[in-house]
Amino acid sequence: MEMIQQMGERAREAASALALAGAEEKNGALAAIAAALGQNTGEILAANRADLDAARADGMAPAMLDRLALDEKRVQSIAAGVEEIIALPDPVGRTDAGWTRPNGLSITRVRVPLGVVGIIYEARPNVTADAAALCLKSGNACILRGGKEAVKTNIAMAGVMRQALEKAGLPADAVQLVEDTSRETSRQMMGANGLIDVLIPRGGAGLIRAVVENATVPVIQTGVGNCHVYVDSPCDLEMAVNIIQNAKCSRPSVCNAAETLLVHREMADRFLPMAKAALDRYQVQLRGCPITREILGDTVVPATGEDYATEYNDYILAVRVVGSLEEAVAHIRRYSTGHSEAIVTSDYQHSQQFTRQVDAAAVYVNASTRFTDGGQFGLGAEIGISTQKLHARGPMGLEALTTTKYIVLGSGQVR
Amino acid sequence: MEMIQQMGERAREAASALALAGAEEKNGALAAIAAALGQNTGEILAANRADLDAARADGMAPAMLDRLALDEKRVQSIAAGVEEIIALPDPVGRTDAGWTRPNGLSITRVRVPLGVVGIIYEARPNVTADAAALCLKSGNACILRGGKEAVKTNIAMAGVMRQALEKAGLPADAVQLVEDTSRETSRQMMGANGLIDVLIPRGGAGLIRAVVENATVPVIQTGVGNCHVYVDSPCDLEMAVNIIQNAKCSRPSVCNAAETLLVHREMADRFLPMAKAALDRYQVQLRGCPITREILGDTVVPATGEDYATEYNDYILAVRVVGSLEEAVAHIRRYSTGHSEAIVTSDYQHSQQFTRQVDAAAVYVNASTRFTDGGQFGLGAEIGISTQKLHARGPMGLEALTTTKYIVLGSGQVR
Repeated sequence: MEMIQQMGERAREAASALALAGAEEKNGALAAIAAALGQNTGEILAANRADLDAARADGMAPAMLDRLALDEKRVQSIAAGVEEIIALPDPVGRTDAGWTRPNGLSITRVRVPLGVVGIIYEARPNVTADAAALCLKSGNACILRGGKEAVKTNIAMAGVMRQALEKAGLPADAVQLVEDTSRETSRQMMGANGLIDVLIPRGGAGLIRAVVENATVPVIQTGVGNCHVYVDSPCDLEMAVNIIQNAKCSRPSVCNAAETLLVHREMADRFLPMAKAALDRYQVQLRGCPITREILGDTVVPATGEDYATEYNDYILAVRVVGSLEEAVAHIRRYSTGHSEAIVTSDYQHSQQFTRQVDAAAVYVNASTRFTDGGQFGLGAEIGISTQKLHARGPMGLEALTTTKYIVLGSGQVR
Repeated sequence: MEMIQQMGERAREAASALALAGAEEKNGALAAIAAALGQNTGEILAANRADLDAARADGMAPAMLDRLALDEKRVQSIAAGVEEIIALPDPVGRTDAGWTRPNGLSITRVRVPLGVVGIIYEARPNVTADAAALCLKSGNACILRGGKEAVKTNIAMAGVMRQALEKAGLPADAVQLVEDTSRETSRQMMGANGLIDVLIPRGGAGLIRAVVENATVPVIQTGVGNCHVYVDSPCDLEMAVNIIQNAKCSRPSVCNAAETLLVHREMADRFLPMAKAALDRYQVQLRGCPITREILGDTVVPATGEDYATEYNDYILAVRVVGSLEEAVAHIRRYSTGHSEAIVTSDYQHSQQFTRQVDAAAVYVNASTRFTDGGQFGLGAEIGISTQKLHARGPMGLEALTTTKYIVLGSGQVR
């Protein structure tokens, strides 16, 4: 516990100062960080080259290497991301509600920072700056623990940000990076009750599960998306083709991509060949139920129950023909991870039934699941997409990094 | 896992139906439950007598026996409590926010039930009806696990409520009681991810700690209150006496009672004798710092660091003289459980500084900490008082038993 305990105590101190900082002060620090990232691009890229060399020597796959790699343009874009946060409204200090009781007590519920936010993440080094900037703007200190693959890059970026914070007159310990990327430091973070107010894991399903199962600190679960598109009867078939193509193919690796296509029996004969033609252009592998294979032929792989439960994050799509809207809803209820679910329909009643009965962070009518995103929703930026129900659900912007306190002003009232 | 798994699956089914029930339907069921509790008072009291006999044979302390005991009047008051929930506004279906994106997507954030709420509680049988009624009104199914001391009473009450639910046309499994009160069933509840959406422990600090430490299901931590009253300089001394007397003595066993009195050095000589006179009437034992003992004499027990960290829930009060507001805030930061903290002051600047710098669910100026309560705050009823920062903070009314979902209506938008 020693190391994280020390960092946690320094973070709490920093958080006390940050909670009292006004938006101008925090925005000044963000501007300083953005400028410093630009000015120190050389140092950051040198560290990144060392990480890349080590990763290549370790046999890292090309897709992963690409996630890890920075160049001048990517660092510029990270700095621009920090600058964009300056323009977002500061949620801290906002009064959410207020009223006066019959005994004269004035009660207001005011937004305040959470305190200390812990982020455990994997290979993408941009998270280091993104998460730090969002935490800073919302008045939180953060403890960042990235993956070992990016550790030199992260150390360089965190160093640059900490210097900028100090120059801007805020405590450097508002942003701390855990340089020891052993399992032990994650374990310590997960048990740092009283020091870390919330843990947000960002990465693959394995990482998220490990944190949820092992943490005693409150966790916000993010980003596991087994998303469905249900093509109802009646509907606009061209719209449906467009939507499933976009939901599957525009970026298959992300959590808001579709993984299963459900099709009403009445539309299947016409729709499935249209959908297949569109998906073939992206070489999407289809894994279908018996009826799908009857209609589309044996090139479709037979789907198993496990296929319906899998978040492929790849050019693979499970397909199932259903007899009714109810059957589609039941399928979704069974397999959904509660992220994003869509219906394509031209029936008003069905649209209502679907949005009421499907339990997910975002339920769509006639639009792609790919819109579940802080930027697309207009929240400005996001720290993650919550797939749990407590505290925050769906894209989490700055407000999700705050809590409230009641301020009660009296004139001597007793009970 | 078998038993809670089965209950959990039945609860999920019931929750799906409940989520779609309108306020009228749910209010009808609440009225039926209130009536049934009245009509079956005899059966409930007989079960309660059996519990009391067993508890007496087991040597239960009189104060605990009193918490467990029901009589006709107490059952009536439990039924009246259920009826009061009918009048509260239904949070489900309320649109919290909504906007249209430049691409024409209409996004609304709508309140929906959490799903299945698990409550683990101790001896008070009134929780069985209170919690079930609040969960029902907010559209949630609940799984209730009370203490073994009250098990017969709880079985009788849950049976009556389940019958009333069925008569009212809602699934009986919306309210399920775990009749096996072994540790094993708590353990299963704590690990029932995917079946139970949130666990709320209600009871002593030991129970709450055990649930927070062992649960992988999200937990809302409630009701640990090491609350402070700080008597500032300058302030109205009579008001200060009134407030500390009320905060300590009006009901010492509850979480919003004060446990430590902090006094500014400049007020101590005049204030402490006044406070002692008032507290002596309730035979409050004082445990003081050296200056307190200098002023009040040796009848004051010397206070240790542990005294400042203790939630006595009794007629005991720790007292410490501080040199400044900053020192008071630092003391509170060190020992507070984040429940309720009060300053008594007549200085505007100090009131601002205290409410900004103290991090707690409720921060008071010139009022007793005893007001931190759903009823006193005007929320109508409460399922508990959250002392954590995620999801809900402070008194939790019906809204704290809901979450949101985004409903996104499009016309074919893709990204």
